[in-house]
Amino acid sequence: MSFNTELKVGVLGGGQLGRMLLQSAININIDLKMMDADPSAPCSKLVSDFVVGDLEDFDAVYQFGKQCDILTIEIEKVNIEAMKKLQSEGVKVFPQPEIVEMIQDKRVQKQFYIDNNIPTAPFVLTDSRADLEKLSDKFPAVHKIGKGGYDGRGVQIIKSKDDIAKGFDAPALLEEFVPFKKELAVIVSRNENGEVNTFPVVEMVFHPEHNLVEYLLSPAVIDKSEAEKAKKVAIEIIQKLEMVGILAVEMFLTKDNQILVNEIAPRPHNSGHQSIEGNFVSQYDQHLRSILNLPLGDTSTKISSAMVNVLGEDGFKGDAKYEGMDEIMRISGASVHLYGKKLTKPFRKMGHVTITDPSLTSLKRKIEIVKSTLKVKA
Amino acid sequence: MSFNTELKVGVLGGGQLGRMLLQSAININIDLKMMDADPSAPCSKLVSDFVVGDLEDFDAVYQFGKQCDILTIEIEKVNIEAMKKLQSEGVKVFPQPEIVEMIQDKRVQKQFYIDNNIPTAPFVLTDSRADLEKLSDKFPAVHKIGKGGYDGRGVQIIKSKDDIAKGFDAPALLEEFVPFKKELAVIVSRNENGEVNTFPVVEMVFHPEHNLVEYLLSPAVIDKSEAEKAKKVAIEIIQKLEMVGILAVEMFLTKDNQILVNEIAPRPHNSGHQSIEGNFVSQYDQHLRSILNLPLGDTSTKISSAMVNVLGEDGFKGDAKYEGMDEIMRISGASVHLYGKKLTKPFRKMGHVTITDPSLTSLKRKIEIVKSTLKVKA
Repeated sequence: MSFNTELKVGVLGGGQLGRMLLQSAININIDLKMMDADPSAPCSKLVSDFVVGDLEDFDAVYQFGKQCDILTIEIEKVNIEAMKKLQSEGVKVFPQPEIVEMIQDKRVQKQFYIDNNIPTAPFVLTDSRADLEKLSDKFPAVHKIGKGGYDGRGVQIIKSKDDIAKGFDAPALLEEFVPFKKELAVIVSRNENGEVNTFPVVEMVFHPEHNLVEYLLSPAVIDKSEAEKAKKVAIEIIQKLEMVGILAVEMFLTKDNQILVNEIAPRPHNSGHQSIEGNFVSQYDQHLRSILNLPLGDTSTKISSAMVNVLGEDGFKGDAKYEGMDEIMRISGASVHLYGKKLTKPFRKMGHVTITDPSLTSLKRKIEIVKSTLKVKA
Repeated sequence: MSFNTELKVGVLGGGQLGRMLLQSAININIDLKMMDADPSAPCSKLVSDFVVGDLEDFDAVYQFGKQCDILTIEIEKVNIEAMKKLQSEGVKVFPQPEIVEMIQDKRVQKQFYIDNNIPTAPFVLTDSRADLEKLSDKFPAVHKIGKGGYDGRGVQIIKSKDDIAKGFDAPALLEEFVPFKKELAVIVSRNENGEVNTFPVVEMVFHPEHNLVEYLLSPAVIDKSEAEKAKKVAIEIIQKLEMVGILAVEMFLTKDNQILVNEIAPRPHNSGHQSIEGNFVSQYDQHLRSILNLPLGDTSTKISSAMVNVLGEDGFKGDAKYEGMDEIMRISGASVHLYGKKLTKPFRKMGHVTITDPSLTSLKRKIEIVKSTLKVKA
C-alpha cells in the first residue's frame, strides 16, 4: 500500500504548536489546513489554506472540518458538538471529541482519574467562592477552575483564609497541596492500530510566581524505577481513553516517591518541544504518525536537552523586539524557536530555546545564560 | 541591538533546498519570499509571498529582488546581470553575483582553482566535440560541459575513442580521470563579518550509472589529517572568494592521499541534508546565519548520520506514489524528508532519508534497508 499524501488534514488552532506541527508535516508531504480566530496567528502565513474562524463556534468548526479527512487540535478550547457531528459523519477526529470534552473540565478530568484508579491528589469540588469558606481546614490547597483555565491561568494557591478572595467564583475544585520533589511530564502516543509508546520522562522547573515552566530537562534526573512508574501511568491513561494522538501527562513525584497525575493535554505540549532536537522523533512527528495511523517512531533520547521558554518581558507591550539573539546563537547546542507573534506582552510565550548537551553541568550553565540573555521587549 | 525579524529575504528558486531553508527560517521569524518558474514548485504552498517567474530572466529577477533587503539563491541557474544591478542598488546579494557567475561556467571555475593554487585535477578546454578527436591520448577522461550542467547532467566519462559521440559539442573541458579512494564534501560558511567555519567532512558514495549520490556518511570515515586537509582547502576557497553564505566543496581523496577539488556550489547542498538531524546546526540554519550576518553556529556532529537520496524509480512517470513508508518509519533513527513534488520521473530527486545511529555497522545496515524498501512509483 502506498503512502497517501493527498489526505486532507485540518488543525483547529494555528498557534506555535501548529507551527511546529507544520514543520514536521512538510517532511512527509502532508498539507495542513488550519483555522484560528486570529488572522495573524503564528501559522497564518505558512499554510495556503488558513481559515479565520472562532474555534468555539459550532458552524465555524463544522464547516472547516467538513473539508477534512482527519481533524486534529493544537488547543483544547474548541467546539465539541461540531467535532462530534463531524465524527458521526465519518471525519476522523483525533483526539476524539469525548476525550477533549472530558479534559476541558478539570472537575470531570479528576473524576476520570478516580474512576480508573489513576493516582492523583485528593480534592473536593467547589461550586462558588463561598464554598471555600467552609474548607479552610484543607488550606494550604490549590484552587483550580473547572473550565477555561490555560497556561497558568485558572489556578490559584490558597495558603490561608486570606487568599480566599483569589479563589474562583465558578465551578472549580480544591486540591490538596502535594509536597512534591519534582514535577514530571510524560508524552505518550497511540495510533489507530493501538500501538502505544512514550517519550522519556522529563522534569519541569516552574517559575515560582508565574506558574509557567521556567525550564525543562530531558530526560528527567530521577531513578529508573520512578521513570518506569511515570511511564506506566501515562500508558494506562491513554489506553483507558483509547485515545488516538499524542497526550501530555503532567505529574508530581511526591516526597514519598508516589506518582500523582496533575493534568493531561491531548495535543503536542510545552513539555515536548525539546524532542525536535533531542530525540529520534519529535512530539510533532509522533502526533502526525498517530493520527495518520503510521508506525510510531523511536522516542529515545538522541542527546540530553533542556528547554527554556522565552516569555514577553514584564513591563513591555507592543511590537516584539528580540534582544540577545547574537549571544544565544554563539552557544553551542542552543536552538532558537521564535513563534512568529508580532505583539509581545508580559509573560506571553514568544518562543523557546532548546539546548542540547551531553553534560548536565554544562546544560545547566547554558540554561542560565539563555535565561539572563534573551529578552523580548517592545 | 535587537534582532531584526522584519528583514525581507528573497530566495531565487523554490525547490527542495528552499523548502528546508524555509523550515529553518520559521524558527527565527524570518518570512522568506520565493520565486520559481514552476507554479507547483515544492515551496509554492508554503510561503505567502511566492512569485512565479523565470530565474534566468533579467526583469523577473530584478523586479523580485527589488522588494528584498537580502537576496539569496537555492539554485545557480539564475540571471547574473539582474543580481549585479540589484547589488549596485544596495540589495545585499549573497552569494555575490560574480561568484555565482564564475561557478556557472565550469571552465572559469577551473581557472579560478589554477589561479589560486587550489588543488584540482588537470584538464584541457574543448570548444567542440571535434576537439576530443585530438585528445585521445588523454582517455580515459571526464568531459564536462562548461555551462548548464546540473545534477549529473553535463558530465560524461570518455573511456576511449568509441565514447567521443557522448561528448559535448559545446564549450567544455576534458579532465584527467582521477583514481580516487573516496569522494568527499565539505560545507563551509562565511558571514559578512568574515567569520568562517566548516561542517565535518562527509563521504559520498555515488551510484555507478546515474552519477548521483547514492548515500552519504557523516562524518567521513577518513584519517584526521585527511579531514583537516579537506577543511583547509574549503576554507581557502571561501576566503579567496570573500563569499557570504554557504559553499559546498566537492572533492576527491586520491589514492595517493591528495585532496583535489571537483566542484563547488554556493548554496545549501545535497551533501548537507543530514545536518538537520546529525549536527548541532544544520546547513540551512547556517546559510541563514551567514546571509543575515549572525554568529555562525556549532557545526559539530551530534550523532553519526547517513543520507540516502530517494529517487524516482526507473520506468515510472506520473503522480508520485510512495511505497514502503511504513517500513521506513519503523527504523529507529530514520527521518523521511519528501520534497512535495507531485510528479515523479526516473531518477528525479523526490526526497531523502537521514539515518542517525552512533554505530557505523548499524548505520550501513539501515542504509541498505532504506535503499531496498522505499520506492517512488507512479
